[in-house]
Amino acid sequence: MFDLAMPCPVLGLLPGDVVLTGDRPTGPLHLGHLAGSLAARVAGQHACPHTILVADLQALTDHAHDVARVRDAVDGILIDYAAVGLDPAKVGLVLQSDVPEISEIAMLLLNLVSLERILRNPTVKAELAQKGDNARNAGFAIYPASQAADILAFRATAVPVGRDQAPMIELAAHLADQLALRGAEVPVPRAVFPAAGAAGRLPGCDGRKASKTLGNAIALGATDAEIASAVRRMVSDPARTSRADPGDPDKPIAFAYLRAFDPDRQGLADLEAEYRRGGVGDGDVKKRAERVVRDLVGPVRERRVEAGRRLPELRDALRDGTASARGTARETLDGIRSCFGLSRRAV
Amino acid sequence: MFDLAMPCPVLGLLPGDVVLTGDRPTGPLHLGHLAGSLAARVAGQHACPHTILVADLQALTDHAHDVARVRDAVDGILIDYAAVGLDPAKVGLVLQSDVPEISEIAMLLLNLVSLERILRNPTVKAELAQKGDNARNAGFAIYPASQAADILAFRATAVPVGRDQAPMIELAAHLADQLALRGAEVPVPRAVFPAAGAAGRLPGCDGRKASKTLGNAIALGATDAEIASAVRRMVSDPARTSRADPGDPDKPIAFAYLRAFDPDRQGLADLEAEYRRGGVGDGDVKKRAERVVRDLVGPVRERRVEAGRRLPELRDALRDGTASARGTARETLDGIRSCFGLSRRAV
Repeated sequence: MFDLAMPCPVLGLLPGDVVLTGDRPTGPLHLGHLAGSLAARVAGQHACPHTILVADLQALTDHAHDVARVRDAVDGILIDYAAVGLDPAKVGLVLQSDVPEISEIAMLLLNLVSLERILRNPTVKAELAQKGDNARNAGFAIYPASQAADILAFRATAVPVGRDQAPMIELAAHLADQLALRGAEVPVPRAVFPAAGAAGRLPGCDGRKASKTLGNAIALGATDAEIASAVRRMVSDPARTSRADPGDPDKPIAFAYLRAFDPDRQGLADLEAEYRRGGVGDGDVKKRAERVVRDLVGPVRERRVEAGRRLPELRDALRDGTASARGTARETLDGIRSCFGLSRRAV
Repeated sequence: MFDLAMPCPVLGLLPGDVVLTGDRPTGPLHLGHLAGSLAARVAGQHACPHTILVADLQALTDHAHDVARVRDAVDGILIDYAAVGLDPAKVGLVLQSDVPEISEIAMLLLNLVSLERILRNPTVKAELAQKGDNARNAGFAIYPASQAADILAFRATAVPVGRDQAPMIELAAHLADQLALRGAEVPVPRAVFPAAGAAGRLPGCDGRKASKTLGNAIALGATDAEIASAVRRMVSDPARTSRADPGDPDKPIAFAYLRAFDPDRQGLADLEAEYRRGGVGDGDVKKRAERVVRDLVGPVRERRVEAGRRLPELRDALRDGTASARGTARETLDGIRSCFGLSRRAV
């Protein structure tokens, strides 16, 4: 079994949990995804069932102008998954757009929640404010309801997210409650957060959110040269002028990467203490970060090559996982249809 | 062939047109439906293909609190259709909730239009203002996009609506244009309005919009006693105090019913002229209206009884029509999926 050479983020999973996670296929996955969710899935996949959604419909809500990007990213994501150690025989890989039941469930769920409540969602609000009204297509605006449909469709009990995503899961839980009041029981999902001390949301090299679009992320397939260049660009504390200055290890981005990925926790703690006292240059921190990232990404990069050769097999796993997940989604849809007075679907 | 004893509203249909119309199953159909759309369908059904949608999903957008009402209204609508002379062997009867492709198309179309544009729709705006924010569930708010999905799914070219519904069809046409820009061709639908002189929107007995909820409409299955009582309640011009007063025939509701349904156009024109000059009492107008409505509804009521006996056959027609329409919807969905970079559906 392939083990990631990084501290394992412990998730608050309970016996019997069904986990739903996933990614929007908008480009290659990067270290932000690894720290924020992939590593936890790899650690958790043997503890309880994981449904992993390749959320291409959700990706289209803000990539309707560039559908080729979404289409072309799907294979890369399958390769990324296999390369970090997700076992396609163990987890359920699901292509969102091949589960039509999700759209039907989403349309029905929209009748159980006010538009105001959907639009109050802080993520939607923030992203709409950032992108401006031109990007405010209706699909993007209502995506929290569509995400609730994903969660309920697959009867997930635990949805690993960042703290800022908690209202998304609250909406899904609210809708599960509404369905229960009408006689259609689906599990009420709860958000599961990264354990204290785990990396959670990893910043990009420039300190902003790590994003392929911003070009500030390190892809899982990055070469050593790309890693070196990215680490070089990592911002430090601009107020610190000499290595003798006492420093705040919360400031340099390189420390964030070390906290996420350095398997030598004692060595890292010592370095942080020394940095606080003064005597450690930001170049030293970056040198360590470069080595840690290189040691982590190197084997993943090699396994990406190997996984690329197995792509037909990975596509089969996606197809089979989707077919199996559709069975669950169909049952959920039947229950929801029945609480709306609609007949059970024959096919 | 059964002919309605009423003036036939002429529609601006063109050779090759494919018509989409339909009704929300929220209760029995009434004379407002007959004047506004049913009569035109009956007249047009032999001229070009009609898809007639029993729009139960749309009904649920504002009847999520009373799903039994929607479920139970479907049979009644089939009976009403047959009773007014729609030929179930000729028109395509479709149950909206049994065409899952519509939900998928709707979710994809939401990515091609801003939420603002959907919410600017005057009907949605007016109904939200009337019903208040509590009724503003997201399903209702976005129903113009969902209605566009109906229209495009079935490749309709002509959609008969009232003048106030024109923006709905404009949205569907806009979305057809957006799809064409992306390489998925669907016909650009146009609104078709009641011909000048046709009844168009028939008011309720109290002068407000005819509505089952307001109890101001005359059902297609109304008894003679119910008709008499409804006509008695029809409001007249309160400013007019004596039959000798010159009157405005646009004011009494009874005249609106005569204009919609009186097959004796010359007799009606004479009465209107006399009313203008003075010398006709509102009671006289109501007496004529009661007779005209009774003559119209009587045969329909009898045919409702007969159609009720044929209900299993009507349900079969709905099932077959739905299956056939799904074929068209599936082809449309395939085309739309492909312009979003999604693969053609195998099944």
